[in-house]
Amino acid sequence: MAETKTIRSVGLIARPRRADIAAVVPRLMEWLKTRKLDVFYDDETATCIRADDHQRHRQDLPGVSDLLIVLGGDGTLLAAARAAAGRRVPILPVNLGGLGFLTSVTLEELYPLLETVLAGQHQTSERVMLQAEVFRGGKKLETQRALNDAVLNKGAVARMIDLDLHIDGDFVSKYKADGLIVSTPTGSTAYSLSAGGPIIYPEVAAFVITPICPHTLSDRPLVVPDTAAIKIECLAEGEGAHLTLDGQIECCATNWDGASVRFQTLWKDGGSG
Amino acid sequence: MAETKTIRSVGLIARPRRADIAAVVPRLMEWLKTRKLDVFYDDETATCIRADDHQRHRQDLPGVSDLLIVLGGDGTLLAAARAAAGRRVPILPVNLGGLGFLTSVTLEELYPLLETVLAGQHQTSERVMLQAEVFRGGKKLETQRALNDAVLNKGAVARMIDLDLHIDGDFVSKYKADGLIVSTPTGSTAYSLSAGGPIIYPEVAAFVITPICPHTLSDRPLVVPDTAAIKIECLAEGEGAHLTLDGQIECCATNWDGASVRFQTLWKDGGSG
Amino acid sequence: MAETKTIRSVGLIARPRRADIAAVVPRLMEWLKTRKLDVFYDDETATCIRADDHQRHRQDLPGVSDLLIVLGGDGTLLAAARAAAGRRVPILPVNLGGLGFLTSVTLEELYPLLETVLAGQHQTSERVMLQAEVFRGGKKLETQRALNDAVLNKGAVARMIDLDLHIDGDFVSKYKADGLIVSTPTGSTAYSLSAGGPIIYPEVAAFVITPICPHTLSDRPLVVPDTAAIKIECLAEGEGAHLTLDGQIECCATNWDGASVRFQTLWKDGGSG
Amino acid sequence: MAETKTIRSVGLIARPRRADIAAVVPRLMEWLKTRKLDVFYDDETATCIRADDHQRHRQDLPGVSDLLIVLGGDGTLLAAARAAAGRRVPILPVNLGGLGFLTSVTLEELYPLLETVLAGQHQTSERVMLQAEVFRGGKKLETQRALNDAVLNKGAVARMIDLDLHIDGDFVSKYKADGLIVSTPTGSTAYSLSAGGPIIYPEVAAFVITPICPHTLSDRPLVVPDTAAIKIECLAEGEGAHLTLDGQIECCATNWDGASVRFQTLWKDGGSG
Repeated sequence: MAETKTIRSVGLIARPRRADIAAVVPRLMEWLKTRKLDVFYDDETATCIRADDHQRHRQDLPGVSDLLIVLGGDGTLLAAARAAAGRRVPILPVNLGGLGFLTSVTLEELYPLLETVLAGQHQTSERVMLQAEVFRGGKKLETQRALNDAVLNKGAVARMIDLDLHIDGDFVSKYKADGLIVSTPTGSTAYSLSAGGPIIYPEVAAFVITPICPHTLSDRPLVVPDTAAIKIECLAEGEGAHLTLDGQIECCATNWDGASVRFQTLWKDGGSG
Repeated sequence: MAETKTIRSVGLIARPRRADIAAVVPRLMEWLKTRKLDVFYDDETATCIRADDHQRHRQDLPGVSDLLIVLGGDGTLLAAARAAAGRRVPILPVNLGGLGFLTSVTLEELYPLLETVLAGQHQTSERVMLQAEVFRGGKKLETQRALNDAVLNKGAVARMIDLDLHIDGDFVSKYKADGLIVSTPTGSTAYSLSAGGPIIYPEVAAFVITPICPHTLSDRPLVVPDTAAIKIECLAEGEGAHLTLDGQIECCATNWDGASVRFQTLWKDGGSG
Repeated sequence: MAETKTIRSVGLIARPRRADIAAVVPRLMEWLKTRKLDVFYDDETATCIRADDHQRHRQDLPGVSDLLIVLGGDGTLLAAARAAAGRRVPILPVNLGGLGFLTSVTLEELYPLLETVLAGQHQTSERVMLQAEVFRGGKKLETQRALNDAVLNKGAVARMIDLDLHIDGDFVSKYKADGLIVSTPTGSTAYSLSAGGPIIYPEVAAFVITPICPHTLSDRPLVVPDTAAIKIECLAEGEGAHLTLDGQIECCATNWDGASVRFQTLWKDGGSG
Repeated sequence: MAETKTIRSVGLIARPRRADIAAVVPRLMEWLKTRKLDVFYDDETATCIRADDHQRHRQDLPGVSDLLIVLGGDGTLLAAARAAAGRRVPILPVNLGGLGFLTSVTLEELYPLLETVLAGQHQTSERVMLQAEVFRGGKKLETQRALNDAVLNKGAVARMIDLDLHIDGDFVSKYKADGLIVSTPTGSTAYSLSAGGPIIYPEVAAFVITPICPHTLSDRPLVVPDTAAIKIECLAEGEGAHLTLDGQIECCATNWDGASVRFQTLWKDGGSG
């Protein structure tokens, strides 16, 4: 539970192309403005309101907001969390009717909960995020973030890929598998669970590395400190390996010979908030 | 164990592009001809011998051979088995140095074993094969065979696909998963095992349907009679599902909305041998 | 589905010590007698009716009945099935309010279903049963039967036991585990499932041998033909192994050094009915 | 890695009833005394040397030693660790020929390693231990410790027990299972792994709670902070539940109605060393 600061500005992130957003967002903005709060919103949300000069790019919203309200499903929340990564802006995720594991606050609960939040009486749960850096030939190609998990997996046809796992510079294991999942505690109830991983309480400072359909049955999920430097070398010939962040962003679908991915904590106090 | 008939002709199938084939095949042909056997060979094998008029297309070899000798690894054997499917031609698989689970006979053991086989004193193990028929809009698009398994799985990026399983016309289960494996007893020690399936003795007349990373943890591998009519409907939007036979052949990588695959035994006595 | 014969006599087996039996059994007996059926009942059922000379020991009921009606939960059914083992008497299990996986017919459905059964229009599902024979020093100590499963497991304290598995005379594997489950298809959804076993359709002629918490992670459930001769040798020192049938009967809790258990099908057509 | 202090005294703990101890211990004592070290030893070790006034009860050895050398297998080490619990005495475990997962130092490596240790150049790995307190009717009955795991499980016959898990006062889950394992990271490669648990690095400050053969397949291993207060209520009727520490100590085999067990970290800095 982190110490909270007084909320003077709110950022709104809403899932685009969802009919019911139009019914919810204008009323919510009105409610927030009545309480003398500055309300900012991203480009997608702007399409369903009478926009003013408070429109921002999504990645700029966390910098001007003391609280982010995210309206949508788990996918919208995961994207918002990646945008807010590294800043200490608390996120209030509201589920708009679909299936939501992370977004458990319903529309009915929103306004009573907002009163509590503005009064500074809420509790926040800090979540660790992952950062993945893609290397080829010693050169960093790109950096991505994830709240749930980063998955290195085979393409649609190839049966298995070969992956070498190193932790803090030590070789740990060579995997023949469909892939490897590096998951945060938050993501431990998502894809990693389906692949046989454990459920990890958010308070445990750890990542879990879960093999997907490993050829060697003794290759079990591995829980490592979230301060560990995790490096996975892709030994795949042919089609190569694919990196997917939170099930949404894909990197480097091309051949990855000689490539590796490094994973590490995105530090909670590394932000500007 | 099936009754064996006198062997008068032998078909050779060798993995192409393998240097050591050239050292093995000519000697083997000589050995067989000395014993007054007719020796046929496929197009790939022809490239490493002084070919005569006994060259045949691979799919025509089973029709003219009383015994197939397959030189290579598991992959070569799986391809040969699909070519021989439906005929009762016994296959003698010889491992040429690589890793082989199905091909356990080594080159050293080959000639003593051949003496036994030609004397009619060997035992054969009958293996059931799978047949997969792909439908779209009620129309059959193609038919494929497998000795190990048929896998319906997601593409490289999509996180899960939705599949409906029907057995003998009855709805059984709706799966949210990376995919579904339909495996023979022979294939039960391959991919299905990695996905959590059981090991099935070849004498059990059954297939196992194993979900890959199912979202619902109570979705367990299902062992059904090999006479069952298995139908899997692909409900996937977007990228669609992919069908892979024995980890080698891929069908219909395009979008499969409204598509389904039917699986059934390829009957052992359906051949001409 | 087996051929059915005309039903002229009905045997009643009811779970003793259950208040609601008294409310159900007399009415059911009246209903059956009105239809000119001979009604027999076991000693426990006799306690809740005005008994006549149709009372029989439970194990003698199957010999005089064309149909057994079992009133209770899964436990009552498992006990009744063991009593009827080897005879072709169909069993109609009725669930009296508790949790029942095998006993899915409710009291409301009983009378309409009985009309169908007496008219010969019902379908029966044949189930294979297990027979376990306990040996020590080459001498058979006892023989037991099970509809669901036979479990060889450690005592309360010992951490693991050593068991050797032989199938049809061949050594298969040495297990270091909490125990081994030998399960029929009917029992595959019970304890074996909790230990990681597959679900097996009743029509598959197979048993599944599922290790409980095996020390070697590659020890996976094994599906073998139900005609196989399964032998498990107990190598346990100290406290020994325990044999439990259908979770109800326990054999030989004393030390089992030098002991073994043989499992085989109790043949469906081996009965007198 | 903990800071090390200069070693002036060494405690010896050797597995009793092991022929080769007699060959090893006297030479080791001589070697240590030559280096001007005070050598203490427990009662069992005393039986194989010419004892002097340095004999101590095992539980008193950690208080007078700057280093414990444990000669035996994993069982001897687990017992020694429980005796040293709460003190910061480093343990050097030496494997005397048997199978040892925790005791990987062989006799050949012992003397070179001891030179390094006495020179203060070694690294120590801190391990968290468990403390289990057994309650009945609100009254604490006993307190036990474990380096690997504490297991609450059913007796030899009963099929399943009912256990309620509470963490930090919150109800988490009701288990129908063979039992529950509470394991440290050190113990995560022992019994918990066989029951489906993950491998946990020693540096992760967590315990894992792993259900044994749970009836509900979605009951997965749970990784919780090692500061959590874990409470398991035993709802078992009849035979009751059994508590086993490190596979060695058993508590309270009698009926446990109304009983519960509380688990917590045995703090690393709680010792006197």
